Amino acid sequence: MDLRPLLAESETKILFVVADGLGGIDSEGRGTELEAARTPNLDRLARQGATGLTYPVAPGITPGSGPGHLGLFGYDPVEHNIGRGVLTALGINFDLQPGDVAARGNFCTLNSDGDVTDRRAGRIDTRECRRLVEMLREIRLDDVEVYVEPVKEHRLLLVLRSKKNTLGAEIDNTDPQRTGVPPLEPHGRDENSQKTARMVGEFLTQAREILAQEDPANFVLLRGFAQLPRLASFKESYGLNGCALAGYPMYRGIARLLGMKVVDCGPDLESEIEALEAAWSDHDFLFLHFKDTDSLGEDGDFEGKVAAIEELDQAIPRIMELRPDVIVVTGDHSTPSAMASHSWHPVPVLISANTCRVDGVQVFGETACAGGGLGHLPAKHLMTLALAHAGRLRKFGA
Amino acid sequence: MDLRPLLAESETKILFVVADGLGGIDSEGRGTELEAARTPNLDRLARQGATGLTYPVAPGITPGSGPGHLGLFGYDPVEHNIGRGVLTALGINFDLQPGDVAARGNFCTLNSDGDVTDRRAGRIDTRECRRLVEMLREIRLDDVEVYVEPVKEHRLLLVLRSKKNTLGAEIDNTDPQRTGVPPLEPHGRDENSQKTARMVGEFLTQAREILAQEDPANFVLLRGFAQLPRLASFKESYGLNGCALAGYPMYRGIARLLGMKVVDCGPDLESEIEALEAAWSDHDFLFLHFKDTDSLGEDGDFEGKVAAIEELDQAIPRIMELRPDVIVVTGDHSTPSAMASHSWHPVPVLISANTCRVDGVQVFGETACAGGGLGHLPAKHLMTLALAHAGRLRKFGA
Repeated sequence: MDLRPLLAESETKILFVVADGLGGIDSEGRGTELEAARTPNLDRLARQGATGLTYPVAPGITPGSGPGHLGLFGYDPVEHNIGRGVLTALGINFDLQPGDVAARGNFCTLNSDGDVTDRRAGRIDTRECRRLVEMLREIRLDDVEVYVEPVKEHRLLLVLRSKKNTLGAEIDNTDPQRTGVPPLEPHGRDENSQKTARMVGEFLTQAREILAQEDPANFVLLRGFAQLPRLASFKESYGLNGCALAGYPMYRGIARLLGMKVVDCGPDLESEIEALEAAWSDHDFLFLHFKDTDSLGEDGDFEGKVAAIEELDQAIPRIMELRPDVIVVTGDHSTPSAMASHSWHPVPVLISANTCRVDGVQVFGETACAGGGLGHLPAKHLMTLALAHAGRLRKFGA
Repeated sequence: MDLRPLLAESETKILFVVADGLGGIDSEGRGTELEAARTPNLDRLARQGATGLTYPVAPGITPGSGPGHLGLFGYDPVEHNIGRGVLTALGINFDLQPGDVAARGNFCTLNSDGDVTDRRAGRIDTRECRRLVEMLREIRLDDVEVYVEPVKEHRLLLVLRSKKNTLGAEIDNTDPQRTGVPPLEPHGRDENSQKTARMVGEFLTQAREILAQEDPANFVLLRGFAQLPRLASFKESYGLNGCALAGYPMYRGIARLLGMKVVDCGPDLESEIEALEAAWSDHDFLFLHFKDTDSLGEDGDFEGKVAAIEELDQAIPRIMELRPDVIVVTGDHSTPSAMASHSWHPVPVLISANTCRVDGVQVFGETACAGGGLGHLPAKHLMTLALAHAGRLRKFGA
């Protein structure tokens, strides 16, 4: 629901500590990673607070990082999907503007018949990617600025920008998703997108000529055409001066999309906490993103993820010295190391504040949280709960 | 949400074991029927899996079999209501076609003033019903085929079929729902339904003449006019080759409505399991329906329902020899024997799969499931969860 009519002035501060991919499953008879970890400080917060499990999108749906974070920030992640092209741009700190059309690209290999033989051109390394991108930057199109950016390995970003703001991103992928067939022509699904698709077609024609003599990467496949979604800013939605402490570009990008201040800091927890301390007095919503829990889960490293959770736990006393009025500790989704990928399993959450209804849960873990006082709820409700616990929401109705 | 963009190819198999009316309430200080039953095999599945409680429609809503099963199969049961006429047709294996208008009928008794004196004509027996239906089959209408079918006791089915496909089912009941008043005239609420209502009126005029000398059943009351709902098939919705093992016609009919293969089998569990074994290799979604839990609950037979649950439990090891990748055991609604009827109480569910987050629940029962890791959730999410646990859903968003 629209919280704006309910927003109350307050000096309170809300802190979201987001351990990416926090949730797990038991694969070794020791419980989940969070349950196996020694977490006296998180357990104390859980004991003094209220706990539960969240669905980032819906039961059974495995979220990407975009939907996972939009949900945490109270934006319905189905209604406001961030396209892959935009997410790629955010992930490399590209300064995407409203109206730009962004697509994610792969360098690929075509045979002499023009059929795709390798959709990733043998996963060329990032240096080679940069060299080829340099070549593609020669491409000029009428009426539109073209940006080509290297990403990682065979991946690149294409952005088209028009001053007339008449581009459309309803364009089908040119990546056929299999080998032995030619790349698809870009096809627009509405008038502006058809016009834009013709520009993309011209880009591809030039790219083909430029890369013709290269090996193995002699062409480009595009997918995930997207424009910046129209999202009400954090300030507008909640009256909060938000600030993100996040070392990784994608999470910085999502925060920027919501109009949060994004502080420069390293990707390690120590740097993020230093930045948190520096930013504390000037903001009333602070989002600290901890990446290692997800990375190690994706690596299938149970012990590593346990250790990362313990590292976060050890930082909690220092974080609590800042005296947030409300602290929320949770994840944007689960990343069980047993699955080495994001998963659909609901995510443990704790809220600690003076205004909590303490629920009797003694430890911070998935099994305990399943019986917690917050119940099992869509993640998008956490922002409302945080605002409420912070005394920032007035009564609804008389 | 629409799962189609997320569907992934997989060889995995999903089995739904639906014990009709499974949920109960405690009436004898022994817990519910499921809790009183000795169920070592279901308990083991619960221990190895994740459990919860489902709302078939919404909290406090008692579902019929149609909504109960639509919810289990992931179709919103409020959005896609199956009308009573259609359900009656499905229940007697009538081959209803898209566009047909079906209504449920009662033989009734009118006095000489034309007022209803008995809405069920003294509950005439099924043989008498068949004889009277034979007489009504003489009725011919212009532009439309008429089918009259006996159901049970005083109940019958009326179906109108037009090749022009211009019939409407927005027709009010002619059953006044009380005695001492005349039957209502059929009244259509839109243009096609008004035209159809006039045909129904002509049918009733002829029926009145034909039955005039009969006693006690000398007329017909109609209600629940309905057409087949437009439902995306199971294959289309989930990419699954579904197969139903169900002895009772109504459940077979609902499965057929969703495009599942419906295997001929007896109504007893042994026959259904044999059919399950035979159908196993050719399908990737199998729905086994067990009716006795509901029938005995409806009879108010606590001990009988306990015994039925124990019979199902004893069959679990044989079923598990088929090695489903995901097994879901649940009901379509509760039928507490203490109430001798369907009820609104949420329904216990267990999911067992390699990818489960085990939730510490030790036994399969309502009280234990209330604290399970799946939480309390609308039944329509179970299909999403089953697909997720089966590795059949890709990540949502990047």
